Amino acid sequence: MKEINTEIKVRGYHLDGYQHVNNARFLEFLEEARWSYMEQNPGFRDWPKGVSFFVVNININYRKPAAFGDVLSISTRLCDIRKKSATIHQDITNKGTGIVVADADVVFVLVDEKTQKTIPLTGGMYTVLENIAGFHGID
Amino acid sequence: MKEINTEIKVRGYHLDGYQHVNNARFLEFLEEARWSYMEQNPGFRDWPKGVSFFVVNININYRKPAAFGDVLSISTRLCDIRKKSATIHQDITNKGTGIVVADADVVFVLVDEKTQKTIPLTGGMYTVLENIAGFHGID
Amino acid sequence: MKEINTEIKVRGYHLDGYQHVNNARFLEFLEEARWSYMEQNPGFRDWPKGVSFFVVNININYRKPAAFGDVLSISTRLCDIRKKSATIHQDITNKGTGIVVADADVVFVLVDEKTQKTIPLTGGMYTVLENIAGFHGID
Amino acid sequence: MKEINTEIKVRGYHLDGYQHVNNARFLEFLEEARWSYMEQNPGFRDWPKGVSFFVVNININYRKPAAFGDVLSISTRLCDIRKKSATIHQDITNKGTGIVVADADVVFVLVDEKTQKTIPLTGGMYTVLENIAGFHGID
Repeated sequence: MKEINTEIKVRGYHLDGYQHVNNARFLEFLEEARWSYMEQNPGFRDWPKGVSFFVVNININYRKPAAFGDVLSISTRLCDIRKKSATIHQDITNKGTGIVVADADVVFVLVDEKTQKTIPLTGGMYTVLENIAGFHGID
Repeated sequence: MKEINTEIKVRGYHLDGYQHVNNARFLEFLEEARWSYMEQNPGFRDWPKGVSFFVVNININYRKPAAFGDVLSISTRLCDIRKKSATIHQDITNKGTGIVVADADVVFVLVDEKTQKTIPLTGGMYTVLENIAGFHGID
Repeated sequence: MKEINTEIKVRGYHLDGYQHVNNARFLEFLEEARWSYMEQNPGFRDWPKGVSFFVVNININYRKPAAFGDVLSISTRLCDIRKKSATIHQDITNKGTGIVVADADVVFVLVDEKTQKTIPLTGGMYTVLENIAGFHGID
Repeated sequence: MKEINTEIKVRGYHLDGYQHVNNARFLEFLEEARWSYMEQNPGFRDWPKGVSFFVVNININYRKPAAFGDVLSISTRLCDIRKKSATIHQDITNKGTGIVVADADVVFVLVDEKTQKTIPLTGGMYTVLENIAGFHGID
């Protein structure tokens, strides 16, 4: 369960004027897959209440167009854990061809919902993320 | 100020696989125009705090496709005030051709933000809406 | 197979400032369900090439808010076939509570993709739609 | 005209469950601003027909949340021209506070619309982009 795959079939409303999935829509696909990841990964059950994720950077490569009817498989996994942030890597693969159409690194920090301030990845939360990721953080 | 016009230029990300503005996107255009209407119409300054609008029905006709580069003008006006609900009418016109590409009636009720329950359009709020609309409600 | 059910789980990006599914987003949910309907209903295999659907009216009731984590089940069925148009009825039900949160009638006409003009529902296409619907059209 | 500013006011439908502008929506804001940039910058009038832009990478920093009613000013400018790709830099600033809420580098390549293959930035197109940018490319 280190990596979760989520499938999305490309529909008419996902396309833009070029008849390809629009680049903003790809970010919704990535968010959909991250919700599945959090839902399906039992490690998140130990996540402390009142601590939420705030995405601070997305670096996405658009490698190939995705077109109507394509079935996309999105893999999601934690790939880096640091003291102040962690990174999720996501690949979007066209299931029919096996080709990666887009891939992204999504960096997030933790936010205390009460104070709305960022908090370091310390103690329990760091361990929870290491368990989810299946490797030791590098900080 | 009974009617407000809002302009939106059709961009690539507004289109879908048919290369026309998608029918869901038209509802965002209508919402954009309603926010402008509330902002520009001085009558809304007297609106009581803690009372919000909840859309209960949208009936929209899609008459003509809207394509890349079209400049759309959206007119917004209150067209009906009743004891439990009121209706806004919106026309979306292609400025280049003068042709209405879509029109909609949007029915809303009032909701008390604290209790999250609907409240009747009575007393002060009814009068505020009549002033905005420029006519007398029919209930 | 007269009626198809499609499930969508409400995610963070589906919500708007009221923390409920936005009314434009509901139209994307309906479109998603209509693509499933066409895909799963074997009757559409006989559909003639070069003839597409153009939505001319959507009448949607928003009955209850849908919130984060809700699982929505969308039923889709043809409910009316006439000589110039046909109507699809869609109900969006909260699976957890069994309550209908929204329902819509979606009226469409047929368009010849070459001429981009509407064409009547005649002969073969009328029969295909009757087979899909499981009842006789009223015109 | 080296840099173009585009204003967008944050509306209810731009927000997500955190009551902030969703990270996918920011990419639509960036696309809106790039269309304005191409429209307002006279250099694009010399752009050859049949050659379109394909975004291959977006690297976006989300620095501060943007909330309902915020007026955002998006600056757009070409910041790098190379032999195979060019880069646009965009800053999204909260006009009320003067604080940059997000900034992005958007890398694009050129695509021949007939062959759907990428083409190098050579000769005339390179010069057009240099004129638009107001500096010499580094390749």
